[in-house]
Amino acid sequence: MDSEMDMLKERTEVIIRFNEADPLGIVWHGHYLRYFEDGREAFGKKYGISYMDFYHRGFAVPVVSVHCDYKKPLRFGGSIIVEASHVNTAAAKLLFEYKIFDAKDKSLVATGSSVQVFVDIKTFELHLTNPAFFETWKQKWKLA
Amino acid sequence: MDSEMDMLKERTEVIIRFNEADPLGIVWHGHYLRYFEDGREAFGKKYGISYMDFYHRGFAVPVVSVHCDYKKPLRFGGSIIVEASHVNTAAAKLLFEYKIFDAKDKSLVATGSSVQVFVDIKTFELHLTNPAFFETWKQKWKLA
Amino acid sequence: MDSEMDMLKERTEVIIRFNEADPLGIVWHGHYLRYFEDGREAFGKKYGISYMDFYHRGFAVPVVSVHCDYKKPLRFGGSIIVEASHVNTAAAKLLFEYKIFDAKDKSLVATGSSVQVFVDIKTFELHLTNPAFFETWKQKWKLA
Amino acid sequence: MDSEMDMLKERTEVIIRFNEADPLGIVWHGHYLRYFEDGREAFGKKYGISYMDFYHRGFAVPVVSVHCDYKKPLRFGGSIIVEASHVNTAAAKLLFEYKIFDAKDKSLVATGSSVQVFVDIKTFELHLTNPAFFETWKQKWKLA
Repeated sequence: MDSEMDMLKERTEVIIRFNEADPLGIVWHGHYLRYFEDGREAFGKKYGISYMDFYHRGFAVPVVSVHCDYKKPLRFGGSIIVEASHVNTAAAKLLFEYKIFDAKDKSLVATGSSVQVFVDIKTFELHLTNPAFFETWKQKWKLA
Repeated sequence: MDSEMDMLKERTEVIIRFNEADPLGIVWHGHYLRYFEDGREAFGKKYGISYMDFYHRGFAVPVVSVHCDYKKPLRFGGSIIVEASHVNTAAAKLLFEYKIFDAKDKSLVATGSSVQVFVDIKTFELHLTNPAFFETWKQKWKLA
Repeated sequence: MDSEMDMLKERTEVIIRFNEADPLGIVWHGHYLRYFEDGREAFGKKYGISYMDFYHRGFAVPVVSVHCDYKKPLRFGGSIIVEASHVNTAAAKLLFEYKIFDAKDKSLVATGSSVQVFVDIKTFELHLTNPAFFETWKQKWKLA
Repeated sequence: MDSEMDMLKERTEVIIRFNEADPLGIVWHGHYLRYFEDGREAFGKKYGISYMDFYHRGFAVPVVSVHCDYKKPLRFGGSIIVEASHVNTAAAKLLFEYKIFDAKDKSLVATGSSVQVFVDIKTFELHLTNPAFFETWKQKWKLA
């Protein structure tokens, strides 16, 4: 694995909708998986491995594991910065780590991680090796 | 159109989740379309014209128009009764009217309606006449 | 009512998430109310009457009526332009009309409208006249 | 911790909506947190520690950590059984483990866990000891 300094990462801002917060004024914990996904997609668009980049090559990349630790309550009326970092691995998997910050005071709101695998878009069969285009991608970024 | 007394209808209970209410304690207005859909599906299961009944015969029934009037705020911590009524029509369309009641005091929370059309599930081409199985269904219920 | 040319309006882009589309590849019709809301909020931020602008002055502006006509199926993998236009009215209400366009080919995907009222944020009591700050707002834009 | 045999648990059925599945026909991974919550609430209603039971005593029980492992793709057109099991702990926390089964073939679809803490509903201050009523609850079930 890379040192954190070397990890490819991207940050994106997400606006918190009023109705994403519950009667206590706190964002429902399930929404964070969507924020993670928005962060992952922003990363994918920057580096060329978005969901659609895989899709157009015949691959789906379903999430097979996800984790989130909530550090402080997130309230409505503001926005967040989602940071998605690619974690390099020898396995045929896509690993990401996430940090969510309050856009205003830059405090850490949540951390998390996800694991995705490569499956054939038609058969949903698991690929035990990296798709060729992803291998090329890794070489380009000196990750393979 | 039938008199309201003769309309086919079905009622189903839906539990309001805590997080479907916003910081004011009020359910977000967009959730009501899901409640309508739950009511429509309960109707479909009772009468044999659920989404999957159409799907298995090669049809999708996309919503092409929807309307909702909100009569009083819906709060968390309870449940609602969704009543879906089929509105008969000569056109190749599925019309439904909805009423949402507070399960506790039976007060009227919202009313609404939707229009669906029949399209081929593969080509998404519009059908200008009723699918045969839907025509049979209408005859069975003396609607054709 | 203003002529359409004179209406205050704002356009905002919304990215369609892969998982907002269903197994037929079509965006679920309920999501459009969220797109409308995103458009209304973009309008509110531009012109100073966002949800939070009302909230900070003690008002909620719940939607009491909404309508949507779906003109063509919206597919995943792209984005849309939501146009929200303020419709002037003498009544103590907020009226908006919406148009959703495919961002790529500019085709019209959906149209709709909503009605909001002014209620006290604590008592949820209906205000039968415009809040003072909204009246000022209307004068500023020559709508009163 | 209890042996698994002794754990308090409850099972509830959840219908998968057509639009909860994506263009590949697979349920979006984020929905599982809602299924977990539905399972947790079914448990809470059976055993008297639902979200509202805490709420009415002045406590919120926010999720501070959640984990989910996805074992096989979940498709539309069916329903699932969500099993929520209470995991006893000496700490002032609510721990749950979850299993999601396909309602048809009883195969395991996903497993997961969550951690909740007790906070004052008004100040959102963390309680470092169990609320009295929860302590009584634990004694009733021979967990304290």
